[in-house]
Amino acid sequence: MLSFESDYIIGAHEKVLEALCKTNNEILSGYGNDAHTQNAKKLIKKACNSPESEVFFLTGGTQANAVVISTMLKSFEGVISAKTGHIALHEVGAIEYTGHKVIELDPDIGKLKAKTVRNYLEAFYGDENNAMMVVPKMIYISHPTEYGTLYSKEELTALRDICDEYGMKLFLDGARLGYGLMSRETDLTLPDIAQLCHVFYIGGTKIGALCGEAVVFAKGEMPERFLSQTKQHGAMLAKGRLTGVQFEALFTDDLYFEISKNAIDRAEELKNLFASRGYEFFLDSPTNQQFIILTNEQMAKISEKCRFGFWERLDENRCVVRFATSFATTKADVEALSQII
Amino acid sequence: MLSFESDYIIGAHEKVLEALCKTNNEILSGYGNDAHTQNAKKLIKKACNSPESEVFFLTGGTQANAVVISTMLKSFEGVISAKTGHIALHEVGAIEYTGHKVIELDPDIGKLKAKTVRNYLEAFYGDENNAMMVVPKMIYISHPTEYGTLYSKEELTALRDICDEYGMKLFLDGARLGYGLMSRETDLTLPDIAQLCHVFYIGGTKIGALCGEAVVFAKGEMPERFLSQTKQHGAMLAKGRLTGVQFEALFTDDLYFEISKNAIDRAEELKNLFASRGYEFFLDSPTNQQFIILTNEQMAKISEKCRFGFWERLDENRCVVRFATSFATTKADVEALSQII
Amino acid sequence: MLSFESDYIIGAHEKVLEALCKTNNEILSGYGNDAHTQNAKKLIKKACNSPESEVFFLTGGTQANAVVISTMLKSFEGVISAKTGHIALHEVGAIEYTGHKVIELDPDIGKLKAKTVRNYLEAFYGDENNAMMVVPKMIYISHPTEYGTLYSKEELTALRDICDEYGMKLFLDGARLGYGLMSRETDLTLPDIAQLCHVFYIGGTKIGALCGEAVVFAKGEMPERFLSQTKQHGAMLAKGRLTGVQFEALFTDDLYFEISKNAIDRAEELKNLFASRGYEFFLDSPTNQQFIILTNEQMAKISEKCRFGFWERLDENRCVVRFATSFATTKADVEALSQII
Amino acid sequence: MLSFESDYIIGAHEKVLEALCKTNNEILSGYGNDAHTQNAKKLIKKACNSPESEVFFLTGGTQANAVVISTMLKSFEGVISAKTGHIALHEVGAIEYTGHKVIELDPDIGKLKAKTVRNYLEAFYGDENNAMMVVPKMIYISHPTEYGTLYSKEELTALRDICDEYGMKLFLDGARLGYGLMSRETDLTLPDIAQLCHVFYIGGTKIGALCGEAVVFAKGEMPERFLSQTKQHGAMLAKGRLTGVQFEALFTDDLYFEISKNAIDRAEELKNLFASRGYEFFLDSPTNQQFIILTNEQMAKISEKCRFGFWERLDENRCVVRFATSFATTKADVEALSQII
Repeated sequence: MLSFESDYIIGAHEKVLEALCKTNNEILSGYGNDAHTQNAKKLIKKACNSPESEVFFLTGGTQANAVVISTMLKSFEGVISAKTGHIALHEVGAIEYTGHKVIELDPDIGKLKAKTVRNYLEAFYGDENNAMMVVPKMIYISHPTEYGTLYSKEELTALRDICDEYGMKLFLDGARLGYGLMSRETDLTLPDIAQLCHVFYIGGTKIGALCGEAVVFAKGEMPERFLSQTKQHGAMLAKGRLTGVQFEALFTDDLYFEISKNAIDRAEELKNLFASRGYEFFLDSPTNQQFIILTNEQMAKISEKCRFGFWERLDENRCVVRFATSFATTKADVEALSQII
Repeated sequence: MLSFESDYIIGAHEKVLEALCKTNNEILSGYGNDAHTQNAKKLIKKACNSPESEVFFLTGGTQANAVVISTMLKSFEGVISAKTGHIALHEVGAIEYTGHKVIELDPDIGKLKAKTVRNYLEAFYGDENNAMMVVPKMIYISHPTEYGTLYSKEELTALRDICDEYGMKLFLDGARLGYGLMSRETDLTLPDIAQLCHVFYIGGTKIGALCGEAVVFAKGEMPERFLSQTKQHGAMLAKGRLTGVQFEALFTDDLYFEISKNAIDRAEELKNLFASRGYEFFLDSPTNQQFIILTNEQMAKISEKCRFGFWERLDENRCVVRFATSFATTKADVEALSQII
Repeated sequence: MLSFESDYIIGAHEKVLEALCKTNNEILSGYGNDAHTQNAKKLIKKACNSPESEVFFLTGGTQANAVVISTMLKSFEGVISAKTGHIALHEVGAIEYTGHKVIELDPDIGKLKAKTVRNYLEAFYGDENNAMMVVPKMIYISHPTEYGTLYSKEELTALRDICDEYGMKLFLDGARLGYGLMSRETDLTLPDIAQLCHVFYIGGTKIGALCGEAVVFAKGEMPERFLSQTKQHGAMLAKGRLTGVQFEALFTDDLYFEISKNAIDRAEELKNLFASRGYEFFLDSPTNQQFIILTNEQMAKISEKCRFGFWERLDENRCVVRFATSFATTKADVEALSQII
Repeated sequence: MLSFESDYIIGAHEKVLEALCKTNNEILSGYGNDAHTQNAKKLIKKACNSPESEVFFLTGGTQANAVVISTMLKSFEGVISAKTGHIALHEVGAIEYTGHKVIELDPDIGKLKAKTVRNYLEAFYGDENNAMMVVPKMIYISHPTEYGTLYSKEELTALRDICDEYGMKLFLDGARLGYGLMSRETDLTLPDIAQLCHVFYIGGTKIGALCGEAVVFAKGEMPERFLSQTKQHGAMLAKGRLTGVQFEALFTDDLYFEISKNAIDRAEELKNLFASRGYEFFLDSPTNQQFIILTNEQMAKISEKCRFGFWERLDENRCVVRFATSFATTKADVEALSQII
């Protein structure tokens, strides 16, 4: 059945799979001490224009969030997130499980605004009781956000400025980073992000890999004995080649950007299609996730021939649903959808 | 200097201190296995009209909150609290430190309304993604709240009904419980609270003791090996007599209620005093904490002769401050204040 | 270079890789809700002769150990392990990181003897102070052990009997389970293990997969909301197909057993080779890990042409080293070794 | 009934109690911001001859151990302890509950020998696999130990030297420190201990106070935001005066040392008494805890008229029991005992 359910419904991009097959019989050391993993790190640092950063591979987004946050914060420090942020809402409290408070602030269509953060920090540092409070030490954002929206360079810079002013770290969850970078409406490049964030990750699971997120620490930001700490979190693969080989393929010949662009091109077509048919959008997303308002009748009818994600009920008659394109979506898929809606 | 800074500025009530002195040379077993602790438990169960409940003594409020919540919840379960709740704001993330998410909902002058909780739960159980979310398993309230406000019997019953409906536990933080029970505006008795809550505690630190909170578990609600678990939290006193003897004194001849009433009587006088002088109240509190709005000039002037608590800045010219009475406040104290304001 | 360094130096078995390729373009739901994962579970339950067990896939051994132990134990409960057990020694304290004590007992060549465990439990339950002690609630063993040794059916039954007697759970870490099952000296079958353990896992990473361990809970032993809990640990793959497809291939046509047998056959050849050349064995291992004592000169010489694992220094002149065969070791590899040693 | 059950069977020393009574009605700020607490800190620093150290008051030993260890170690660091150490055995895994491994080494009558620790560290740092292991970062000892034994100045210096060599911290649990300092067989003074340890505590609960341990951090060793962290652990008293006033009394006019000496004098009398009657000692203790071997008949007979602590069963006929003297034991108590044994 046709499906726009999510961006992780297909296995790996064919070139990624080819790389796994081609290297399969090579004898390689474990735990990331292999040539492909080393090369993948080199390629990523180059793409980030950040030779002094440090790159590590983890298997998924929640794992990356929990490992990064818990290894960068002390026990009395917390992380600021939009109330709708992935760590705040959809990770079964994985951050709290490591002992840290997620300080939830009100977002603007998924985004954390500098003004909101600044207000919180001014109140915190102006409060004589703050010895009784968790110290806000990190800002967590996702880019694109859970609603497909994007930070502008100015907005990201404003968050970084706050971090510098208050001694905080800026952490960008890039589970869908490629789709943000190739959006037609972004002014942020990968080197910009590498320069503005203390730590971020480049999502592979949703963009061409079977699994894997590449965590990038800016110079000097990598936690002590980080590899040991990933082991302690159960996050280290014995066959580190699995993520190394995949990211090596993704960052060879700009594959990551090319296949991310495919998702954006298909999303634009899908957006135009829904618009041309008079459907209402829940919000304006410049990336691969499109949030559409459907009546109950439309939902029932489309569901018969096409899968999509349920988001929330708006009222008795209408729901918000999500159509996601990905590295693997084809023009034919969008055309098939045009026959259905 | 005259002080209404808080309700823990004086040592113990004289009868509590006398009891400590009187029993000091008795040879008693440790860890709560002594006759005074046992008697204190009996007296409290009687005051609660709840012979089958279980009573344990801890030393302070944050400790009680962390021990109760972490021992009653499984790792994937969270506790709902008002955003202004003590556990949400002023315990340095002690609950998250034990691995549990505090799910913060918007309060109504410090109180968690049944409607707010119900909306949250309906959304949670209506969301197909809730396998990715922390399971709300407990409702935490404080009574009186951080703003001195009180739940009515109807409101508390409504929260309990929600708990029954959704398989949750109701936990009442009674750090200032006596001041709530003796308020002129409450319709809740101690037996009511014991019947409506799965677990609650009776605060001693702020009402006549040097330290100590009496945690009361309703029948069948005490966590397995609870004493061992308090030890694991570093919350067990070798000389358990310290809390046992104090609570024995507090619950002999209704001392706890009598001294709580003193705080309420003094608070009413103080309230009338401020009102009669035309001061503005930040909110209407029926208990021992009164929140007054002062201009910068008033603050400066009163500060010279009397201590009070700073709450928050309202605007450039005005602040909210707190005047707290306690078991130890005298009529003379209020009269002295009348010379100052 | 020829390598017997470990059993995770090659990618996946070719049939496992083929399965990943063949299913790559199928549109599948995430988080394990796909047909291949479901089928893999069915095949594993069948191989275990345990239709009522529950199977879940995790990515690695340390992750499996931490998730299983922390979700099955309460906070005041600990797990008994041999002092040389993987969780005791080589997981950077991953179990303690989740809050649980690993109670270390002296092993017999890597194995935990029933007598040792019983002595500990009798002392624990005979001690009046045990309210101050962690409650031993689980026995952790690995099979094969870190030293390649195996439990007999009688020994495993004795541990299970202790569990039944003391209300404990038996957990078997089977990171190398296939190599144990196909050993020429074992009397334990997979159904035996499924029947005797409350929970165990079937290792994939070291036996034919790129990653993945299949956790098998006996009837009724699966922790509440287990999937959510794996998410909380950062242990859930968005593309659950990655482990599902691999285990489906491994448990089709007995592939898992067949390739495990290959490792054993090669290990026997290697063992005979070393014995015939007069090398001394550190211990007698009936599985794929062989521990040989080498002089410094031998080490230096062999290292030039062949990789192996360093274990420990015995004295100034001699070291213990490990030669591991795997699903991928060939007769040609052993022959090549015969030219070197 | 006559009791030598433990050193916490009596309330506070009379001068400590007097101080609590005398200061009871003083208006004092909370959380340790009061003049008595500040003075107590000053007095302790002076007694330690360590003006640049930092002193904090906690309520009990397990709490002090958990707070100190968890705030001084990073998540991947562990603490070395004798297998018989209090944190290893009798605190319900309170250290592991905070996420840290207790690395248990074999003791010599309760004491951790430098040689044992050095062997462990050499093996750890000589192991190529140590990235998979918890990093030993602290040495925990108790002085006196759980068996009443004492470290000599040479032994303590040897442990400190190891710490300096390997970048570790030396932590001395002084729950019974006074009894160690006043032993007739010690060559260690309080200033020695303050100089040799990175952190230690001076026990109050077992020596004259109702509760309280004074944690002393050497210059520069206090963890960041330590007060907030004690709050996060539920270890901060609102009425900090409770511990401040008690320690102020204990360190005025050498009361702490004088009453500790009383316990030692009585212990020597008790020791002589048992020896003169031909009883066998389990070990030779120079402090207030004496471990005697009793036959079943002796146990039964003495139990009728005197309480003592049960330690362990030696064989069918004999047990080890503990007689503890304290600050409150009188010459009359020992004389009464002489009528019984």
